[in-house]
Amino acid sequence: MSGEIRDAAAVARDLRRIVGDAHVLEPVPAELLQDATETRGVRGSALAAVVPADAEEVAAVVRWAGAQGVPVVPRGGGTGYSGGAVPDAGSVVLSTDRLTGPGRLVPEAWRGTFGAGTTTAEVQRRCLEAGLFFGPNPGSAESCRIGGNVATNAGGPRSFRHGSTRAWVGGLEVVLPGGDLVRLGGDARKSVETLDLLGLVCGSEGTLGVVCEVTLRLQPAPEIALPVLAVYPDRATGLRAIAAVMACGVVPTALEFLDGGALRASAAAFPGGLPDDAAFAVLAEALGTTEVARLEAAALADALADDALALRRPDSRAEVDALWRWRDGVSLAVVAARGGKLSEDVVVPVERLGEALESVDRLGAEHGVPVTSWGHAGDGILHATVLVDRSDEAALAGARGAAHAMLGIAADLGGSLSGEHGIGAVKLAGAATLDPAVLAAQRAVKDALDPRGIMNPGRKLPPG
Amino acid sequence: MSGEIRDAAAVARDLRRIVGDAHVLEPVPAELLQDATETRGVRGSALAAVVPADAEEVAAVVRWAGAQGVPVVPRGGGTGYSGGAVPDAGSVVLSTDRLTGPGRLVPEAWRGTFGAGTTTAEVQRRCLEAGLFFGPNPGSAESCRIGGNVATNAGGPRSFRHGSTRAWVGGLEVVLPGGDLVRLGGDARKSVETLDLLGLVCGSEGTLGVVCEVTLRLQPAPEIALPVLAVYPDRATGLRAIAAVMACGVVPTALEFLDGGALRASAAAFPGGLPDDAAFAVLAEALGTTEVARLEAAALADALADDALALRRPDSRAEVDALWRWRDGVSLAVVAARGGKLSEDVVVPVERLGEALESVDRLGAEHGVPVTSWGHAGDGILHATVLVDRSDEAALAGARGAAHAMLGIAADLGGSLSGEHGIGAVKLAGAATLDPAVLAAQRAVKDALDPRGIMNPGRKLPPG
Repeated sequence: MSGEIRDAAAVARDLRRIVGDAHVLEPVPAELLQDATETRGVRGSALAAVVPADAEEVAAVVRWAGAQGVPVVPRGGGTGYSGGAVPDAGSVVLSTDRLTGPGRLVPEAWRGTFGAGTTTAEVQRRCLEAGLFFGPNPGSAESCRIGGNVATNAGGPRSFRHGSTRAWVGGLEVVLPGGDLVRLGGDARKSVETLDLLGLVCGSEGTLGVVCEVTLRLQPAPEIALPVLAVYPDRATGLRAIAAVMACGVVPTALEFLDGGALRASAAAFPGGLPDDAAFAVLAEALGTTEVARLEAAALADALADDALALRRPDSRAEVDALWRWRDGVSLAVVAARGGKLSEDVVVPVERLGEALESVDRLGAEHGVPVTSWGHAGDGILHATVLVDRSDEAALAGARGAAHAMLGIAADLGGSLSGEHGIGAVKLAGAATLDPAVLAAQRAVKDALDPRGIMNPGRKLPPG
Repeated sequence: MSGEIRDAAAVARDLRRIVGDAHVLEPVPAELLQDATETRGVRGSALAAVVPADAEEVAAVVRWAGAQGVPVVPRGGGTGYSGGAVPDAGSVVLSTDRLTGPGRLVPEAWRGTFGAGTTTAEVQRRCLEAGLFFGPNPGSAESCRIGGNVATNAGGPRSFRHGSTRAWVGGLEVVLPGGDLVRLGGDARKSVETLDLLGLVCGSEGTLGVVCEVTLRLQPAPEIALPVLAVYPDRATGLRAIAAVMACGVVPTALEFLDGGALRASAAAFPGGLPDDAAFAVLAEALGTTEVARLEAAALADALADDALALRRPDSRAEVDALWRWRDGVSLAVVAARGGKLSEDVVVPVERLGEALESVDRLGAEHGVPVTSWGHAGDGILHATVLVDRSDEAALAGARGAAHAMLGIAADLGGSLSGEHGIGAVKLAGAATLDPAVLAAQRAVKDALDPRGIMNPGRKLPPG
């Protein structure tokens, strides 16, 4: 980071020469200084925000920043859960809002190219219009941007079968920290002609460059989505149902769970209602051609039926959409329970999900805070969450302690600190406990590609 | 590389102290000094070969090599097509032959861990015994090793639906060039807790470390594989069939093609024979539960049927295996036609496959050499091949010129120099033509992780 205090007005003047007067914001609007970690009190500060029109302007901004030693914080939709796009004082926010272009779809090759600032929902809509399908579906699709999905390697429920964003990316246009605008990968569906720099940028949270354009390897649009939801009287029964799905021979597109707390918080919004004694829910989905999806959904329903209190199999498009809207709304419903939450996206080996959920409960009891979990059961990802009244400072401190302790579940059970949300700013202390040789290797890679340390410094990698 | 001429006997003495007398080979047997590029005359030389018993011994060898400045060339089954594991004089070959361990399978979590020296076929067999499935299937499964599959990011026909090896790897035990033994990823199915060092190692062809153990994210074993093969009177008809498959709504596990030359060379071995006037073949496969695979195979057969001279739909396990044995044998059948071949695995955007095949023909005519192509149509990968009598030096020179010119197809059509085989030694001249900024970035990463330059130097990356 820059060692000197800079004059925001002078910085803005420089940036206006690159992108034009209308596209530099100084002072920076509050909404560009926060992300979803605002619910845990994370707020940033920046000299200015710049909104380049195209990749060439992005490159010019990055070159200027390198020459000046000013940190650059790339920003998509600002929907992150880890503070990865929340700027530190003295930096410049680089918004991808104008990198939306017309895009290019090649239906016969299952390929689409989109500007980084395109919302994920818009990518999904345009793909569907062309008979194609983009699988990753983070809950914030209407706000988040495809460039941010790449930068965080975003996932979501349907990544169980289809993989996180990385699995769908064939090419990237990226401005590297030195200011070079490069293409990594491209229109070819496969390539091993270089080291996998493309994969390295995916999930790097803006620390290795600015993603300007994304070329996606798509699939044919499914004719139908058939989710199956079952609720159970207790966790143990629900975990057996998850195991039954894993053993049924079908790979569902999604395999989700909600424990009792998340289920209660969201039950009122569940289309058609749920039994009062439901204490655990499992959601599996089949997706594809109508014939195949019906066969697979039947197999999933069989696997989920044992000891279920209720089984819901929405069939019409409207019912299916309503179910997923409910699922996407779980996070907000949990927030509403107490006004706030701290949430970690710890990952454990799938067979240890039960142990992880017990650990969450135990940590909640130890810290005297209410906890709940839901997430992507098939991938072993639990959104381990502490409910908190944000106006209660003492409760907030307890919640922070409990949330931090949740990260220990990953180490205890041989998992990962984050499956999808990333490290950003809020998990740096956790990440600092990883193998020092691994940390040194990633630091070496970062320093090699960004010797001036201007690309989103202080994020993703713990201090060297 | 080491600047001094070393005494092989002294090197062997040092290595024997690490791995024991029986596990250092000096002089090095000829079979450890070559790979599949032997058919184009590539042969190597090395001071010694070392065969460590476990990851700790690998780390000790790498630390010794670092201290001595001796290049280390990691080697799996030696089945590569790019000379990536063919050593230069003055180096030490590190064979993974003894890194076979018992492995660990966790069927309920769709996970398996295998020593790097385990053959891919053994991985596939053990997975199937546990009710699981490993998708990548390079033609050399009985010889190649899972560690080599990772190092090259190997693919094969079934990677069209399921992705190359990278998509199946959840964790690696790797000795980094500095001699640290680290775990990247692990038993969690997803992780974004660090930069994607795991992905960086995949496909790095031994230049960033030695893969010692591989943890795979598997899928439930399919009940049945149903390939459908159709032959056509000409290329244009075959290309329309490929487009019809891409438009039919099903994602086949494999979508392969053979042009007239490859088909003629292998026709005698085709189970049940093929029409004499067949000049192009397309092979698509459905794989999964019996019910689903039958539905999908029917859709694929419909898509392939228009204007086909013949359609073959093997249904029994024995017939299906025979068909895939024939497909796996195409490469050798093409070799047999003239005694030798030079083959490139150029990738083009799928919609430009026809142009690429025309370019191969044109280059063959221009260089006065017989050419043929086959490969993974759905991924746009063509094994663009020059047939050659290896005892004819003039013919060999012409063939080399034509093969090198084939690499230009990738650049002309917006593709990639290599989809699966890698750069190794034989494509370095081609790789040197890539964007200098991309080459500089990968060189920076390599130098950061391997400052002494001891891990398979002179491979994958063109000289800096």
